[in-house]
Amino acid sequence: MQLRIPGPTPCPPEVLEAMGKQMIDHRSQSFSQLMERLTGRLEQFFFTKHDVYLLTASGTGSMEAAIVNTLSPGDKVMALSCGYFGNRFAAIAQAYGAEVKKLDFPWGEAVDPGVVRQALKTEPGIKAVLVVHNETSTGVTNPLKEICRVVKEADKLLLVDAVSSLGALELRADEWGIDVAITASQKAWMTPPGLAMISFSPRAWQAYETAKMPRFYWDLGHAKKFAQKWQTPWTPAVSICYAMDKALELMAAEGIEAVWARHAKVAERARQGVKALGLTIFPKEAVASNTVTAINAPPGLDPKQLRRILREERGIVLAGGQGNLEEKVFRIGHLGWVTEKDIAEVLRGLEVTLPEAGFVHV
Amino acid sequence: MQLRIPGPTPCPPEVLEAMGKQMIDHRSQSFSQLMERLTGRLEQFFFTKHDVYLLTASGTGSMEAAIVNTLSPGDKVMALSCGYFGNRFAAIAQAYGAEVKKLDFPWGEAVDPGVVRQALKTEPGIKAVLVVHNETSTGVTNPLKEICRVVKEADKLLLVDAVSSLGALELRADEWGIDVAITASQKAWMTPPGLAMISFSPRAWQAYETAKMPRFYWDLGHAKKFAQKWQTPWTPAVSICYAMDKALELMAAEGIEAVWARHAKVAERARQGVKALGLTIFPKEAVASNTVTAINAPPGLDPKQLRRILREERGIVLAGGQGNLEEKVFRIGHLGWVTEKDIAEVLRGLEVTLPEAGFVHV
Repeated sequence: MQLRIPGPTPCPPEVLEAMGKQMIDHRSQSFSQLMERLTGRLEQFFFTKHDVYLLTASGTGSMEAAIVNTLSPGDKVMALSCGYFGNRFAAIAQAYGAEVKKLDFPWGEAVDPGVVRQALKTEPGIKAVLVVHNETSTGVTNPLKEICRVVKEADKLLLVDAVSSLGALELRADEWGIDVAITASQKAWMTPPGLAMISFSPRAWQAYETAKMPRFYWDLGHAKKFAQKWQTPWTPAVSICYAMDKALELMAAEGIEAVWARHAKVAERARQGVKALGLTIFPKEAVASNTVTAINAPPGLDPKQLRRILREERGIVLAGGQGNLEEKVFRIGHLGWVTEKDIAEVLRGLEVTLPEAGFVHV
Repeated sequence: MQLRIPGPTPCPPEVLEAMGKQMIDHRSQSFSQLMERLTGRLEQFFFTKHDVYLLTASGTGSMEAAIVNTLSPGDKVMALSCGYFGNRFAAIAQAYGAEVKKLDFPWGEAVDPGVVRQALKTEPGIKAVLVVHNETSTGVTNPLKEICRVVKEADKLLLVDAVSSLGALELRADEWGIDVAITASQKAWMTPPGLAMISFSPRAWQAYETAKMPRFYWDLGHAKKFAQKWQTPWTPAVSICYAMDKALELMAAEGIEAVWARHAKVAERARQGVKALGLTIFPKEAVASNTVTAINAPPGLDPKQLRRILREERGIVLAGGQGNLEEKVFRIGHLGWVTEKDIAEVLRGLEVTLPEAGFVHV
């Protein structure tokens, strides 16, 4: 089976094997040692010397944690969106009573830092900026470093959804001035879903002091207190911690820059291969993501039918479109445990299946 | 290793093995079939014909879900508490702006339904009652059936923390009139932590319609919508679903009444054995829990020292006390995958270790 969706991503056999270990007491020294090791490694991958916490949750939970730990109802935030997950980040802030100024960019394009700079100048009283690093729904990677520069020039709090980027694409939390970055185990981390990770800068802690949104499970104050003993406030997903411990070991052995380079190479192979088959990439190619490629469904081709044949007859699982792209694109996930060979298999599968699904390359 | 804490509980080898399976697409038919099977089995174990949802979270997350899906800030709720988790349930409601009327009972005793009846009569405007079925911190099981009767007589919404009871102790959601019951995978369910389960009655859905507490990740409206396709709104902890699928199969094969009977027998063995060693049970014995036994640390005995020796020299892991019981009790967890033989091993270990830790039975 070639599971090529942007998460859950396939896990290396060593990672799956690690989950076979029996439970341990989450208040024991053995667990603390595991937490200390995980946290240390994650700090390296987040490029932060500040706090990183593990939450037992999906990525969306950590998006909520980013918001409720730093903001109060009525706070004005600017949400930069160029897709489904940008909209979700805004929706969570809104659900908790933030006054959300949404800055929308066309789906398939990236957030434009120049436009953000201008918007921050004309819109007074913004407390925080929300941005998605890699927009999984459209296959776009936003120019995060430049966005960070603009947001920091304007001296705003910066919350980054890095769910499908961190660990696969360059992100340097401290150097770039990111106050909160979140990601989740089932993406670049080659680990099953169940854990989300969140970094929290000193400035984020300052915001926390006055943040009034209600919180309990997500309250990082509890997490901070328990982290002093390398524990979590609530029972953690122990098996997923075992898995992530092994996965981070593999990633550290490869080296984070090498991991980034592999993702870039694999993605380039995917894009070139798809175009050679006569298909077109959904996003502007200059901002196409190195973790997921969104492909336009050409006229005459039903992407659901294509995915069904690939899955049932070739064991290749691709993702559909999200939101208003549901019938319009299909996506290849290439993050985490992925090589050029995997992409070659997907491309071969597509080559055979496209005509069967109604598309002939002329 | 004898892991005898009240969660995470040890998992049978088949359950651990089930987690070795590779990831699948959580939007695929294979996953939907798994979800449908899990949900069907859980409905049987909850004794409900209404909704049961899986959340990727620890038990505390589902406590929060119970509250934010049914209540609005300013709603008056009565929180019945006889321990650490009763206090936590109240604290979560308070964090979200409920006006919490706390009805406290001495630690070691159960919630008294007669007192609850009286309190509900004298306190007008209560919208919901919060109660913990099995208070893990003190080893007390509350008379839930009687409490339910009282709360339903008064026609209030009833939210039950059944984290450490459901699946091990009798609970009949529909028959007893429980509107929301929550539990978590790492307790009676012989599954690693990472999933919480929540039942939701038609009356709970009525409350949901007007409930104004902010919510997004916990919003069961999303869960309900995705459950129509047997999916979850956010990426679920797939491996833990695999594990629970196997564990529920084992529990169904044993039969739920047989599982309850086994827990009763094992607990009785634990209580009698502990007393035979000259120790005393912390709670009133009539309300002592069948899933966890809290034992008084006798004068002269340091419970931390006792637990250290048991752990390091005998491979027996017991739990300490929580909250203000930290130095005063130690606890044996006996829920989930546990037999009388396991308890016999713990008792033998205690017999040898107690004198080494400073306690001599006279």
